[in-house]
Amino acid sequence: MKGFIFYNPTQIVFGENQTKKIGKYIKVKKCLLLYGGGSIKKNGIYDKVVESLNKYNVSFVEKSGIKPNPVLSFVYEAIEFAKKEQVEAILAVGGGSVIDSAKAIAAGFYYDGDVWDFFIDKAQIKQALPIYTVLTLAATASEMNSGAVITNEKTKQKFNIRGDCLFPKISILDPTNTYTVPKDQVANGSVDAIVHLLEGYFTKKYPNTPIQDGFVETLVKTIISSTKEILKEPANYDARANFMWSATLALNGLTTAGIGEYAFPNHMIGHSLSALFDIAHGSTLSIVFPAWLKYNTNTLNERLIHFGKEVFGVSGATKAIELLENYFASIGAPTKLKEVSISQSQIGEIAENATSLAKKWGLTEYTKEKIEGILRLAL
Amino acid sequence: MKGFIFYNPTQIVFGENQTKKIGKYIKVKKCLLLYGGGSIKKNGIYDKVVESLNKYNVSFVEKSGIKPNPVLSFVYEAIEFAKKEQVEAILAVGGGSVIDSAKAIAAGFYYDGDVWDFFIDKAQIKQALPIYTVLTLAATASEMNSGAVITNEKTKQKFNIRGDCLFPKISILDPTNTYTVPKDQVANGSVDAIVHLLEGYFTKKYPNTPIQDGFVETLVKTIISSTKEILKEPANYDARANFMWSATLALNGLTTAGIGEYAFPNHMIGHSLSALFDIAHGSTLSIVFPAWLKYNTNTLNERLIHFGKEVFGVSGATKAIELLENYFASIGAPTKLKEVSISQSQIGEIAENATSLAKKWGLTEYTKEKIEGILRLAL
Repeated sequence: MKGFIFYNPTQIVFGENQTKKIGKYIKVKKCLLLYGGGSIKKNGIYDKVVESLNKYNVSFVEKSGIKPNPVLSFVYEAIEFAKKEQVEAILAVGGGSVIDSAKAIAAGFYYDGDVWDFFIDKAQIKQALPIYTVLTLAATASEMNSGAVITNEKTKQKFNIRGDCLFPKISILDPTNTYTVPKDQVANGSVDAIVHLLEGYFTKKYPNTPIQDGFVETLVKTIISSTKEILKEPANYDARANFMWSATLALNGLTTAGIGEYAFPNHMIGHSLSALFDIAHGSTLSIVFPAWLKYNTNTLNERLIHFGKEVFGVSGATKAIELLENYFASIGAPTKLKEVSISQSQIGEIAENATSLAKKWGLTEYTKEKIEGILRLAL
Repeated sequence: MKGFIFYNPTQIVFGENQTKKIGKYIKVKKCLLLYGGGSIKKNGIYDKVVESLNKYNVSFVEKSGIKPNPVLSFVYEAIEFAKKEQVEAILAVGGGSVIDSAKAIAAGFYYDGDVWDFFIDKAQIKQALPIYTVLTLAATASEMNSGAVITNEKTKQKFNIRGDCLFPKISILDPTNTYTVPKDQVANGSVDAIVHLLEGYFTKKYPNTPIQDGFVETLVKTIISSTKEILKEPANYDARANFMWSATLALNGLTTAGIGEYAFPNHMIGHSLSALFDIAHGSTLSIVFPAWLKYNTNTLNERLIHFGKEVFGVSGATKAIELLENYFASIGAPTKLKEVSISQSQIGEIAENATSLAKKWGLTEYTKEKIEGILRLAL
């Protein structure tokens, strides 16, 4: 095992009927309530949250309208609003897009310059408003990590930040809050969580990591089986619970601690697809990841065989990729570029965009030509 | 999955050459350096720690001599010493006994009454000195949890405390610090960590917990394989690293989060064996646990079959118990009471002692008769 630092101070409050406790946990007088397109008003979560804030005398102002692939312009607006309103914390009620926006706003609140500076490594995050979350969509693990991804619409860059002060203080994970998540978003979340796990699993160089391997295999198997159950029976508590906790553990630092150097090349390419064509994050990954595995079958042969055996109970690298791709397709996730109306002629533009993130992430072996080669396998 | 709260703010600094950084992490001017029987002076860890404290201008006073099954009288003495010296933190360099003592001292430092009050639930821990650790023995996970176990020599009670302020701030886990741990202590640590994992695994009532099951099975398999490697080759870095991290994860709250109600009956009975006869904690568990499994074979039949299949690749409940007991014996751990010179005539006294912990832990189904029944299977 390689050396590592593991630190994750987020407190997870997991289970039914926990949403109404959020007001008790927020230890400030005034917060910014942040949410997305308003589904929380239809399914009753908004009312529960507001009732709890009122009960515990937490006053709040609100800002909503965050969309998938959350954008920098919203973050700018919300920072100004939060400053004007002198809020002391942010309460994000939503999925990864809402929580990621909350993190960017929390960091920008105390910074006099342009918050995008943090994304382009021009400045380091030193202070942030405390963040609380009520998770309504299991996928990104933003509820238990210190990272956030925001799209700059002007520069067409989907970039990330990270900082210890961005760990949410408390995250409420109530599986029943996800009962009404539509099937396509379940599929996106399922793909996202699986690829979070497998990027590290397939890119790490250090061989002897049985703990991390076993954890990843357990989580991938659980995500696959619980996703199938959810799609059949959306209000299956155990399926929603197992899926929710798996997705959180998939990117909270646990499965990568000790594996040494690893990379997120599929997220890199996927981010470009989202930045250019506003394709849902999960959909970009279900398209890119099987292609990336095919491109790397030779170097990953042994690892793919192990993966296939442990997760699908099959023999052979090609069979393992086939079963993963079939799984993505079976839950309605796109696995080819044409399914999201992208043709061969656009591959160059995507690859070009991805090279800027490749530079930021130090993945210099990902030249434009290599990325094009991967994307051609997804046509 | 059942509802749960997961919170673990300890920062783990894992890897070779990390010991010398401890001074950098301790953010106070004066600390109490706590250690055991002095092995850290022989293997050079003491020198590294002192050098680091000096380098970062952390002054310290020291207290040593903590033994396995750490005792209350030492804790009392150290609390007085810490108060007199006005230390601002405790640095525990050792294994579970040293870290558990540190926690009791840290809690007692701010309490005007008798620190034993916390152990008998007469008072709640509200404040504690910050605790830092350099782990030298992988076993108890005290380096990443909020619990501690201390033996009251007068009352012959081995009782525990728990409190959020007892989580170590920073724990340095350098596998090379365990290269000189003797074989019997490796065996004790191996048994302890395995039983930590399996108490919850076999006592939980909630059936649908695939994440936690998979994590436990991964960790048990890793502990078994790495223990074997360590006993063959004590300075095998990967084996020591995999063993160390497994033991930490075995009792840091991860594998029990979401499994609902569970119990530690084997620790309960084992604690009585230690309190009465000062037997090493791991040895009490390698004796009690196979007997407890045999006693409960009928009710645990299905679970044992699953365990045997996943961990040992065998069929059948009896075979699973046999292989686990054989494993304990193969690493030199005792599996029968006679190996620690306890005979049938002493079973009543042990069972009697264990019932007081059974009351404290709410395990009222563990009557004297039932505990005697279990212990008879370990004769």
